[in-house]
Amino acid sequence: MSPLSSASEQKLVLSLSCADVPGIVAEVSGFFFQAGCNLLSAHQFDDQDTGRFFMRMELARVASPGGEPLSLVALQQGFSAVAERFRMTWTLRDAHARKRVMILVSKFDHCLSDLLYRWRNGELPMDLSAIVANHPAEVYAHLDLSGIPFHYLPVTRTTKLEQEVALWHLVEETRTDLVVLARYMQVLSDSLAARLAGRCINIHHSFLPGFKGAKPYHQAHARGVKLIGATAHFVTGDLDEGPIIEQDVGRVSHGDTVEDYVRKGRDIERRVLARAVSAFLEDRAILNGPKAVVFNP
Amino acid sequence: MSPLSSASEQKLVLSLSCADVPGIVAEVSGFFFQAGCNLLSAHQFDDQDTGRFFMRMELARVASPGGEPLSLVALQQGFSAVAERFRMTWTLRDAHARKRVMILVSKFDHCLSDLLYRWRNGELPMDLSAIVANHPAEVYAHLDLSGIPFHYLPVTRTTKLEQEVALWHLVEETRTDLVVLARYMQVLSDSLAARLAGRCINIHHSFLPGFKGAKPYHQAHARGVKLIGATAHFVTGDLDEGPIIEQDVGRVSHGDTVEDYVRKGRDIERRVLARAVSAFLEDRAILNGPKAVVFNP
Amino acid sequence: MSPLSSASEQKLVLSLSCADVPGIVAEVSGFFFQAGCNLLSAHQFDDQDTGRFFMRMELARVASPGGEPLSLVALQQGFSAVAERFRMTWTLRDAHARKRVMILVSKFDHCLSDLLYRWRNGELPMDLSAIVANHPAEVYAHLDLSGIPFHYLPVTRTTKLEQEVALWHLVEETRTDLVVLARYMQVLSDSLAARLAGRCINIHHSFLPGFKGAKPYHQAHARGVKLIGATAHFVTGDLDEGPIIEQDVGRVSHGDTVEDYVRKGRDIERRVLARAVSAFLEDRAILNGPKAVVFNP
Amino acid sequence: MSPLSSASEQKLVLSLSCADVPGIVAEVSGFFFQAGCNLLSAHQFDDQDTGRFFMRMELARVASPGGEPLSLVALQQGFSAVAERFRMTWTLRDAHARKRVMILVSKFDHCLSDLLYRWRNGELPMDLSAIVANHPAEVYAHLDLSGIPFHYLPVTRTTKLEQEVALWHLVEETRTDLVVLARYMQVLSDSLAARLAGRCINIHHSFLPGFKGAKPYHQAHARGVKLIGATAHFVTGDLDEGPIIEQDVGRVSHGDTVEDYVRKGRDIERRVLARAVSAFLEDRAILNGPKAVVFNP
Repeated sequence: MSPLSSASEQKLVLSLSCADVPGIVAEVSGFFFQAGCNLLSAHQFDDQDTGRFFMRMELARVASPGGEPLSLVALQQGFSAVAERFRMTWTLRDAHARKRVMILVSKFDHCLSDLLYRWRNGELPMDLSAIVANHPAEVYAHLDLSGIPFHYLPVTRTTKLEQEVALWHLVEETRTDLVVLARYMQVLSDSLAARLAGRCINIHHSFLPGFKGAKPYHQAHARGVKLIGATAHFVTGDLDEGPIIEQDVGRVSHGDTVEDYVRKGRDIERRVLARAVSAFLEDRAILNGPKAVVFNP
Repeated sequence: MSPLSSASEQKLVLSLSCADVPGIVAEVSGFFFQAGCNLLSAHQFDDQDTGRFFMRMELARVASPGGEPLSLVALQQGFSAVAERFRMTWTLRDAHARKRVMILVSKFDHCLSDLLYRWRNGELPMDLSAIVANHPAEVYAHLDLSGIPFHYLPVTRTTKLEQEVALWHLVEETRTDLVVLARYMQVLSDSLAARLAGRCINIHHSFLPGFKGAKPYHQAHARGVKLIGATAHFVTGDLDEGPIIEQDVGRVSHGDTVEDYVRKGRDIERRVLARAVSAFLEDRAILNGPKAVVFNP
Repeated sequence: MSPLSSASEQKLVLSLSCADVPGIVAEVSGFFFQAGCNLLSAHQFDDQDTGRFFMRMELARVASPGGEPLSLVALQQGFSAVAERFRMTWTLRDAHARKRVMILVSKFDHCLSDLLYRWRNGELPMDLSAIVANHPAEVYAHLDLSGIPFHYLPVTRTTKLEQEVALWHLVEETRTDLVVLARYMQVLSDSLAARLAGRCINIHHSFLPGFKGAKPYHQAHARGVKLIGATAHFVTGDLDEGPIIEQDVGRVSHGDTVEDYVRKGRDIERRVLARAVSAFLEDRAILNGPKAVVFNP
Repeated sequence: MSPLSSASEQKLVLSLSCADVPGIVAEVSGFFFQAGCNLLSAHQFDDQDTGRFFMRMELARVASPGGEPLSLVALQQGFSAVAERFRMTWTLRDAHARKRVMILVSKFDHCLSDLLYRWRNGELPMDLSAIVANHPAEVYAHLDLSGIPFHYLPVTRTTKLEQEVALWHLVEETRTDLVVLARYMQVLSDSLAARLAGRCINIHHSFLPGFKGAKPYHQAHARGVKLIGATAHFVTGDLDEGPIIEQDVGRVSHGDTVEDYVRKGRDIERRVLARAVSAFLEDRAILNGPKAVVFNP
């Protein structure tokens, strides 16, 4: 095994969930201590309602007394024995390995624009596997899409099935880890939603569960709310019902028109979506049945 | 007419709504200028959807060139001609005349406690016409209710009708301007709600329209939201559907239990209700069909 | 005078300040009523500390009984008599006439990027007179600067004076209404700051008056604050002391590094700056000595 | 040893800090696993700047295979060996043992009122060892102080020294764990501040480090800020310079007077102070030199 070439390669992230029984933390932290890893930070959560246990750890591989740090693969193999005993759902990753993200977008591109900006400045450390739009590339002419594969997949009632098949193939071919619906105005079929379970995030432009479905800002304006919101959630077959990852709100007044809601909402949507994507990239968002555990950094 | 005895008696508040036509502001401000009043602050709003116009003005009665300031009654009489022409719904009040407020409360007394504190320190300049509870006074033993008429009106399915009659008589006898449902766990009948239209405020412990009805914190916890909220609204026959006056939210996490929601929610509820009551006391909340115009101070 | 061609040309914005005396509102609203204008919304503020009065009105030119609406020039001429009487500082503008904005930027381009996005989607209705950077255009290659005059004005200790002269000429030649320092890392000289008084906005990356000067995020991290902030203010000769237009904050924790502060701060900075620029474009920010009156929309 | 009588007695809180070295978490969690304790939740933080490590754990004593759970004393004795090895500063407490809190107050009693309310409803599970005021009890007549020892310790320039001695004796006699300066308008001497290091919390009515010292709302009003804030911090000899535990802000406008700031500020102060006290009671606030690590629940 060759020596690790830089400090950045040595940071690992462990994320897991399992039924709660005594001794999990002791066992897990004991394993990594023996394996020459130092714990940098950790979060645990024990859901008393469901009896599920959730944990995220950041670890540093350091030189053990016996020599070189273990490779990631060796650590994964070693840990799988612990994981099996507790029937864990788990991942152990190099913290600096970039996940592959596909962004789906329709006409409104403020979330796309924001994700691109955060990607370029390093705030969202990911690789963009593709941008998929149901509008042609010209629509996004003012955005710098250079170097990102762009796919124009227009959807009509009759082509929807074929386009979903194409989309799924694209996800597979590009080894996409996360699909982001960045104000993508097409509802995924139950079948596709099921295949993407736990790795597809949508941004809905309301404070769910208020104002589900179409035209939430119009609904909010008609109701005369004093705050508008946005919700990022994992996509499931139930529209606007998936596990919530992040929400935020902003103030509106009687003087604001629907157009003002839309304008103010853009800022809320993009920051909520960016936070949710960040949580996914860092393995901080873990499914918990109809809910999501999200460990804050 | 005797000279005004203090500066505080000289401040007036005008609040009005009417169909929008040209010239309203010119006419209104012209009237008060002629009547020897100086404008301190003003808000207008023209609802383009409904064609309704809303205005609130703070005025100071100053000595006119021709002599003494006019009395409030004289100003009201003079203004009624203007108001009639535009078919206004309006009030013109001494800004320092205290409204009479009745607080209805059940077991949870955090909102009552908060309103009392703000009343005592002058933040909510009102007279308390009564506290009405469906629990006996002992339940509130740690609160200082001295000097406030307390009425124990227990409600059961069979006594509800009689108690509502008693409540209504109390509202009339005490010349109550505003009824506050400060976590009062009884739903008012349609009939009573109608009689109190525009002068009864409820605090609902959710971010409406999400989680209407019973046990909203339980609903919110089951849904896995990341923010909880509270909503103060005018009471109408439609439960939790009245015009919204104020809303606010606070952050929760996966680690929070329903009890944590309840605890965090108390802080949100009490500040939302206090702001709504303040808006009513200062004539800043004006009905606009199913919505409320709320001018911020 | 030809008839007005569209509704949008008919909306005017009046903004003024003067010493407070009785009758200003009656006089102003009377003038515009006589001139065939309808009031859409209005804000007034009477600063009791300084005796200054501030007002902003949105007006619609409608057909008066006597015929055509007056032209903007005619209204300005007519109003100047009123303004003179009260010694007002005032502007009366077509609400849809775009102001000309120059953006100054250094290496960090998140504010520039955000302003461009809001400009393109119409949220900030302005004309960009120029982008001036002390770095060459390649630094901003991922931003779409097409159609915007770009000026590379590198600043060193020895060239600072010349570059400020060049900058000033550029402001004049381009008839720039507003200069925005969008994380421009050069301090303007007192002389240039004075010339741009009231039309130059800076974004400072701290919650002023805390952490003035250089490296505010480092200062904040060393102090262990729990919230970081940003401040948009009019530029004056006193560094970081100009009238504050807008501020906002975001939460940080002990686990956040200075780099995390910088990252979180970018979001705060860009939304605070965008709100301040919007207030300027809409004549909602009015100087009041060392402070700024900002009417919310 | 008798079996534990209720679940609530079985919950423990461990809080510690020490120099960061590999293996701490493995060692600590291994110890408690061996001792028959189950981990409920945990937070760790490794300060890369100072090399200090911080941890808080919630543990449940469960029946070990070998028999009864260990007593708290036995666990403390057992853990002291681990703690000594890592030179930890640490506490291991029954989570339901109430800390003893002394509240110091002057004329403004909104924070006192709020703490009492949260104490009575169980939100702040503490025992009140004393209320100490430099005003007589009549000043707080509308608050229910029944059952709480009240001490009137008026302070003048000449009596300050004696009163501080009296205060210190009171802290000792009442075995007070935490002294809360709930808008107590006397500055503690360096000597008393030193003695109370790490167990005295003050609420300052500004967003520190802005507006230190006297009359911060007046300073903020003069500066024309758009947000006001409050800061809860551990008291040190340096006035307003102690480690910050919690901060929050609220919006103000040009129309707000200093009195409005004071009124709005009360709400901010009381919630910031309550959160800081809660963090202390739950061992979530740990000193880190001039800063405080605060683990959120």
